[in-house]
Amino acid sequence: MVAIGIDVGGTKCLAVALANDGSILDSLTLPTATGVGIVEEVADLCTALASRVGKAATSLGVGMPGTVSRDGIVYLAPHLPDVRQLPMRALLSSQLGIPVVVDNDATCAGVAEWKNGAARNCDNALVITIGTGIGAALIANGKVMRGHHGFAGESGHHIVMHGGEECPCGRRGCWEQYASGSALRRMANGVSGEEVLLRVVQEDKEAKRVLEEFASWVALGLYNLVNTLDPQLIVLGGGLGSSGVLRHFVADALTQQMPPSELRPAPLLVTAQLGHEAGAIGAALLGKEVIE
Amino acid sequence: MVAIGIDVGGTKCLAVALANDGSILDSLTLPTATGVGIVEEVADLCTALASRVGKAATSLGVGMPGTVSRDGIVYLAPHLPDVRQLPMRALLSSQLGIPVVVDNDATCAGVAEWKNGAARNCDNALVITIGTGIGAALIANGKVMRGHHGFAGESGHHIVMHGGEECPCGRRGCWEQYASGSALRRMANGVSGEEVLLRVVQEDKEAKRVLEEFASWVALGLYNLVNTLDPQLIVLGGGLGSSGVLRHFVADALTQQMPPSELRPAPLLVTAQLGHEAGAIGAALLGKEVIE
Repeated sequence: MVAIGIDVGGTKCLAVALANDGSILDSLTLPTATGVGIVEEVADLCTALASRVGKAATSLGVGMPGTVSRDGIVYLAPHLPDVRQLPMRALLSSQLGIPVVVDNDATCAGVAEWKNGAARNCDNALVITIGTGIGAALIANGKVMRGHHGFAGESGHHIVMHGGEECPCGRRGCWEQYASGSALRRMANGVSGEEVLLRVVQEDKEAKRVLEEFASWVALGLYNLVNTLDPQLIVLGGGLGSSGVLRHFVADALTQQMPPSELRPAPLLVTAQLGHEAGAIGAALLGKEVIE
Repeated sequence: MVAIGIDVGGTKCLAVALANDGSILDSLTLPTATGVGIVEEVADLCTALASRVGKAATSLGVGMPGTVSRDGIVYLAPHLPDVRQLPMRALLSSQLGIPVVVDNDATCAGVAEWKNGAARNCDNALVITIGTGIGAALIANGKVMRGHHGFAGESGHHIVMHGGEECPCGRRGCWEQYASGSALRRMANGVSGEEVLLRVVQEDKEAKRVLEEFASWVALGLYNLVNTLDPQLIVLGGGLGSSGVLRHFVADALTQQMPPSELRPAPLLVTAQLGHEAGAIGAALLGKEVIE
């Protein structure tokens, strides 16, 4: 029995094969196909990886960078403009003949961190993925919150500054415009987030000032989510979010922003444990659940 | 068997006695006692109402206007300044000798609307109480979301305008500063919300302009919650929120604010059904659950 999970990114697809105990047997990466060719590619990737580990795939989970309905229809994927209302679960499942689950990529990464990573055994947690954009997975009452359509966790587009920066979503002042990798690059006049973090470690004062400003925006959105959801733990993941340096700055900002109260400490803030494979691992775990 | 529910307000306490079928047998109102005298008053009110209906109370639920921990300790109640870290559940339960539940008043009102009112049979709903302030109850996956400490639903203090209006909570730009009864009064230069609504019905243009501005702020916060929680239904309750006129304006604003998409319609927006007794009814229902 082998559970396959595939994380479809804007530029590449990562597939992992999970053993029964949750360990990774093997993995495989391909450039992302454009348009609806994505269904073929995901099916081929699944078959190729299963054949490499020498076992038939028993289930497939797919993480997609967009809004996915509860029944596995991909409504919109901003980085894959040809993908609209694509019934990905139905297509893959009929093609492969195994149970398939399709979900949002940040939700998949959150499931992985919750089941096997930094939020293990935590009934109320947030897993926030900060990369080019912001994704969120919400764990409440010991379950993943999906919402009515399956679109819960679009917190990157909650508004923190009425009338603020324009967002491609059509509104102004979304959190993502202040607290994503793209926002940090803008605040640093074009310097990449990776480079800003490096300069902070080298004690560059200007880089430190920029990172403090950026971290206060990250903390502001986390503060908003804390008010609504009251999590025990917040996990920061994603290319930028997993940085220990950033976590340190955000934790300081969040503590400063919580109203002074011995009664309500800021929630614990930790970095993700599963790295760039979190999305694929979580997708595999969601697929596995269906057959268990 | 009679379940008593008591809604403790800033100025008065309302007690209801519920029959097995959820109908109200009788109710009783008293001015709210100051300070820790509140425990005595609630206990007396419970006994007095039970004696009026001629049955022993089998459970008590209490809704408090503040943050209440999962084990019934009232941490802070802004309108009852002497109440701090009051172990209300333990005190009441030892005094009355029956099972007692203490929870936030907006959570209680939400439970009532969910079990017996406008959000019946809805697994993913928000019940937003707009009066002097803003309270929120979140129903997700068919359960009330309480969060880790029990403080979930403090959405009135999520920030919608970085650096905006000062809030007594210590921060700036909280939703409550733009979308509560107090905010409407400020926008209307001291005219009460009730009066603004009346003038709108009388087709006063200035009142209409003010209510449109106010409704757009209400919708902004709802939009933020929709992004994170993806509810099927939003129930507006509370003294101001229950107004059908306001609901109409907010629904228009919310539809305008949702990014244009046939894929993701604005959630259904309805007014609460249980009126000012919702808090007490919900408290009674929560108390009843314990012994069922």
